[in-house]
This record gives sequence, structure tokens and C-alpha cells, in this order.
Amino acid sequence: MRPVYLDNNATTRADPEVVQAMLPFFRDNFGNPSSTHDLGAAADVAASRARLQLQTLIGAELDHEIIFTSGGTESDNAAILSALDVLHDRTDIVISAVEHPAVLTLCAHLEKTQAVTVHKIPVDRHGRLDLDAYRAALTPRVAIVSIMWANNETGTIFPLGKLAELAKEVGAFFHTDAVQAVGKTPMDLKSTAIDMLSLSGHKLHGPKGIGALYVRRDVPFSSLIKGGRQERDRRAGTENTPGIVGLGMAAELALKSMNDVATRVKSLRDRLENGIVQAIQNATVTGDPLARLPNTANIAFDPIEAEAIVHLLNREGIACSSGSACTCGSLKQSHVLSAMKVAHSAVRFSLSRDNGEADVDRVLEVMPAIVQKLRDCPSPGADRVSAEDVQRNLASAAAEQAAAHEP
Amino acid sequence: MRPVYLDNNATTRADPEVVQAMLPFFRDNFGNPSSTHDLGAAADVAASRARLQLQTLIGAELDHEIIFTSGGTESDNAAILSALDVLHDRTDIVISAVEHPAVLTLCAHLEKTQAVTVHKIPVDRHGRLDLDAYRAALTPRVAIVSIMWANNETGTIFPLGKLAELAKEVGAFFHTDAVQAVGKTPMDLKSTAIDMLSLSGHKLHGPKGIGALYVRRDVPFSSLIKGGRQERDRRAGTENTPGIVGLGMAAELALKSMNDVATRVKSLRDRLENGIVQAIQNATVTGDPLARLPNTANIAFDPIEAEAIVHLLNREGIACSSGSACTCGSLKQSHVLSAMKVAHSAVRFSLSRDNGEADVDRVLEVMPAIVQKLRDCPSPGADRVSAEDVQRNLASAAAEQAAAHEP
Repeated sequence: MRPVYLDNNATTRADPEVVQAMLPFFRDNFGNPSSTHDLGAAADVAASRARLQLQTLIGAELDHEIIFTSGGTESDNAAILSALDVLHDRTDIVISAVEHPAVLTLCAHLEKTQAVTVHKIPVDRHGRLDLDAYRAALTPRVAIVSIMWANNETGTIFPLGKLAELAKEVGAFFHTDAVQAVGKTPMDLKSTAIDMLSLSGHKLHGPKGIGALYVRRDVPFSSLIKGGRQERDRRAGTENTPGIVGLGMAAELALKSMNDVATRVKSLRDRLENGIVQAIQNATVTGDPLARLPNTANIAFDPIEAEAIVHLLNREGIACSSGSACTCGSLKQSHVLSAMKVAHSAVRFSLSRDNGEADVDRVLEVMPAIVQKLRDCPSPGADRVSAEDVQRNLASAAAEQAAAHEP
Repeated sequence: MRPVYLDNNATTRADPEVVQAMLPFFRDNFGNPSSTHDLGAAADVAASRARLQLQTLIGAELDHEIIFTSGGTESDNAAILSALDVLHDRTDIVISAVEHPAVLTLCAHLEKTQAVTVHKIPVDRHGRLDLDAYRAALTPRVAIVSIMWANNETGTIFPLGKLAELAKEVGAFFHTDAVQAVGKTPMDLKSTAIDMLSLSGHKLHGPKGIGALYVRRDVPFSSLIKGGRQERDRRAGTENTPGIVGLGMAAELALKSMNDVATRVKSLRDRLENGIVQAIQNATVTGDPLARLPNTANIAFDPIEAEAIVHLLNREGIACSSGSACTCGSLKQSHVLSAMKVAHSAVRFSLSRDNGEADVDRVLEVMPAIVQKLRDCPSPGADRVSAEDVQRNLASAAAEQAAAHEP
């Protein structure tokens, strides 16, 4: 049976056109863009084209507002550290409580090792930002606000335009981790007050190992990785030409399929959610019902540990994820759901343009029996038993794997 | 006519087997190694295999001494910054005067912004390190020594084993940028005192955008990029599985072809050098005649500006490079040759296992006339005219390109 892949917020299958676009840059046009000979020049032209494709997707004013990086995490790190360096007399950072580990871990480290104060803005039970707390945290001490465009677990979209304008009023930089949003929702950065934006190739059917950081042209920037003068002195290291070309093509294809995601994929997601909620008692959809990514369904099945469901779905050839971080076989509460105070764990189904009706049918077919089986578990507590079951099963696979929930 | 590529120290053509090995990880095994479902596990297994292939090539004791990064520049930055973080009561860094910009630029930045003293050890006219100056710089204040395994412009190999042992005596970490050496010269790190080593995929017929940092198991390490817990908490960000698999295959192939490089490629290089020196007056081979990479020829043609030769060779379909850094059309003296006090500029021919006798024949065929033409230049100074000629020709190609000499 064909595997059903519903973990597209973790990573996506590269589009065949992306791979085709990349191939010549491994073998034929393999030159170093910094070399002055023809092979170098050809690689440089290809990178310029990719920059334009990405500029178009996110609505940047200028192509060179885009810096190619190795991915979303590097982009997030670069943005926050640059702001602290540029506005070195400011000490505060404002983030949401539900940011990606790329932001949370860096901020925790900065708070521990430097004279930096991090304000984590809480969210409500739908994952919506507490705007009063946000306004209260905004002072002239804030160097940078970093709030994700859309949450990776629930799909909740934040009111970025407004948040960025408020940050501007106190002279802070505004950065957004838009790794989950780029390609799934239209963007026109030039009409916003957003200063910096992170994105990642492999979340939009592009290759892994490539991403970008948008830095608005009037925003001073201090590079994270220092060395050669690539990317206008903002990111050193030989350009990953095949990756850059692949990301450019992925951006072009994402723009073309934006409507498909907003309509067909969204209706698949809605059918999946409604089907589950109707068939299974105590199944709750999390996230903001009004502002949510079209592809993401995050569903809690009280009182079952989500990892147990993910595990049994995997046996049925269905790939999805739990909202919880899994490190070396130990189960940890999702920081996102914990901040929302709604459920101890939930199953995330994340769709893409690769999915069709049959995928949804398959999940709806097997889901009721799986949940029933786990709820019937003849143990002193379904929670504990299913967690142990999962731990046992994960132990061997994950022993060698310093696994991080991604994202 | 088939182009002749002799710029393999800048970047190499990916091996067909490398590309073949990568392909399944874009489309079939595209899972996120951190995901707990089968697709994730398959990607994780592939990364483990690549780690073993790399471990074998460099003679590391353990596979997890290898951390995958986005390339040599990131690895260099991560090594140096980690050492300063771990040994935070130490203030000094020792490097050679001929390091790659990834080390030089970072060190210059640290010296400017932090209480760090950088000792740049000079080299002699063959590019050999001044050992007396090196010993004098080694004090208990030194956090890290970072000396390249082999120089990218001249190919001169440094006595790494000895240098590392001396660093150890004062309790400093020893790091080497081995980007040019890995795959071209045998390595057995476990029998050395080297603590950290940087390498890059695209310098050994692997893909761009992937590299590694070797960190010996007993060396404490602080990550440069923070976020998820990938790479045992030492490098955050979704693993670039295709890149990792490609680098692993490149490592395996490099080991297989090590003998070919040491014999056949070396004799091609020697024939190229001897042919040029015999046919052209005032052509001088730079670098250490006794300890040099087998693939690199760096030749000065006084008084001609090397960029002029590179430019005319490019017209003949021959790709090579000058030792000088080129930024937006302006010519700058090579810091390596400047440190060696031997020539204002030189042409670098860097070979690989892809080259054959015909490539050398072709260079030897066109070279005398090119040099003669430039020397005959009826101008008030051959230097100035040829530099201007190059600047004019580079201006259009390089206008949009924040070109860095790489490497």
C-alpha cells in the first residue's frame, strides 16, 4: 500500500522540478560563483535568478534583500544575534511562548550567558498572542521582537502586520520565523513593517540544507558566519548553488500552487478534521479557528498520549507527528500545547499539495479503531501505559539519534 | 573544444556516484531524521552511514566525533568561537598569516569587538611557518590555535602533528582548517593531538552546502547555531540528508582515489609546472618544494598581473584562478603571497582526479603565447595595463557579485 505522508510541517518531498533544476549544478555548471571564469559566472547568474524567484514569492522590494543561508535555524539565529549586535545598547528580546526551538533555545542561552532579558508573551487556549502582554513588553530597551508567522504545531497565524508596527514604535527590529508560512499563505513584505524573515527550503518542496533570511534594505545587519564576502558580506561560505537553484524553483512552484493549497488542500484538511471529530469522542482540534494555516490539523485525543497514536499510524503506513518533543526516547510535553493549556498532547497532521482524497480516506478508515484500542488499554492509566509502550518502541530507533522535534 | 577545469581548489565537479547517492533522499527517503516514523528513521540511518564513511577517511576514533555543518566556513567559525566560549578565561588566538578568510575575517572581527588578542604567525618565502614565532606565541593565555593543514593558494602543507603537540603543552585547543587537505592526503586523526578539524564537501567532489567539523570526543564544545537538538546538541537545524549522504559517498570515493591523486595527478601537476618553467622565462613555482599538496601549482609570471593570465586562459576555455582576492572588479594583493614576500601575484592551477594528460597539454600549448602577449604589451607598465584590462572585463560580470576569492 502506498505510504500516506502527512508530516509536511516536519519536511516535504522535493518537487521533481526542483530536483531537475538542481541537477545541472552538481555536474555541468558546478563552478564557484566567486570564481571569475565562465563556470563561476554561470553559477552566479543562476543564484541571481533564484533570488528573484524568492523575492517574488515573499513580495520583497529588492532581490538583494534576500540572503541565502543553510536553513531556517541559521536564519533565526542570524537575525536575533544581528539585532543585538547592531542595537548594542538595548538589552531586551520579545518572543512568543510558542516559538520554534531555533528561537527559544538561542534566547535561553542568551539570557543565561549575557545581560539579556527575554520576554515570552503568553498565548490563549487557541494559541493567540496576548496583545496586552505584548504591548507591555515593548519598551525602548527592546532590540528585537521575534514572533513566528504561523505556529508549526497548531498552524495558528499571528497578526504580523500589527505586531511589526507596534515594535517599530519603540525602535525595535521585527523578525519573524516564517518557515511554516512561506508558500502556504500570500506575502507582500514590502507593504509591511517586517524587518527580517526566516524561511527554509525543505518546508516548501525544496531541498534541505538551504534557507534564506530576508533583511529589509534599510536594516543594518551583522553577519553570523564570517569569512569570504559572499552574499554582500552578510553570509560567508561558498554559495550552495544547487540548493539555491532548488529553493528558487521551489519558490516559483509554491507561488503557482498557492491557490491549490488555499482551496483543495484546505478542504482536505477540513474533511480530515471534521471526519475525526465526528467519528471519535473527545477529539478536539487545537489552534485558532479563524486564523490558521490551510494545511495543518492538530488534534488532541484525551486522554491518550499522542505518541502512541503516531506510532500505531506509522504501522499502518501513515506518517504524522505528535506535538511533543522527543529526545532520546523520553516523552516531553509540547511547549506549544503547554502554553495553550489545552491538552497534554496532540497529533499533528500536516498536508501539502502532494496529498489527495485517498490520504484522508485512509486516516479516517484506521483512526477510530486505533483510538479505541488505546482507550481500551487494560492498564491502571491509559496515559502511562501508552507512553511506556512508545518509549519501548522508540528506544531502539532513537538511541543513536539526538532527535529534536522538527519543527 | 572540451573546457579544461583546473580550479579544483575553488570547487570540484560532484562525482556521478555522489549525485546518484543523493537522489533518493530528495524524493523517496525525504523524511526528517528527527521524525519518529519510518521515513524519518530511514533518513537517520543514511546519515549514520555517511558519518562512518567520513570517520574512515579522516581516521577519527568515533563516528560521533563528526558534526555535519553547512561547510568549511561554518566549521571554522564554530571551532574558534567554541574554544573561546569553553576556555572563557583565555584571551589569545594563534593563527598563521596565510589562513583562509573564514579564519582571518572572524579573528579580525573578534580582535575589534572583544578582548581578544590574535597572534598571526609569519611564513617564509616558501610559505613555511616560522616555528620560533609560533613557540613564542604559545602561552597559557591561548584558547585556540587554528592553523590550516595545507594552504589553498600554494598547497604548502604545515607540520600539523608537531604544531598540535606544542599547543597541547600550554593547554590550548588545536583546530585545523583542512578543507584543502581532506581527500588529498592520508589522515589518521586518532593518532594526533588535533582537537578539531574543518572540512568541506565541494572540495572533494561532494556537494556544496555541506561540510563537517571533527571534534575529538574529550573536547568540550559549544554550538554556534542553536535550536533543535540535532547532531547531539552540537549543530541545530534539520539535517541536510541528501548533502550528508553525498558527503559520505565523496569521502568513500576520495579514500579510493587517494593513491591516484598521490601518483597520477601529482605527476600531471609536476609536468605542468616543469613544462611552464622550462618554456617561459621568469616563471616561478611558489610554495614549499618538500611539503606540498599533490594537486596544486602556483606560478608567478613576473611582472604580469595574474588576473590578466587567468582572463586570457578563460577565453581559451581553461578555468584556473589567481591568488588574489577580487572584490567588485578591484584587484587586491593576495595575502598569502604577500606574507611570503615572493611575488605580487600568481596563477593557481589546481588539479583533481578528473584531469588527464590532455588538460596539461592544452595549458602548455597556449601558455607561452599568452605570457608573451602580456609581456609585449606596449604600455608604460605591463602591470598597470593588464590590471586595467582585467578590471574592465570583470566589471560587468562581477558588478552584481560580491565576489570573494574562494578560497
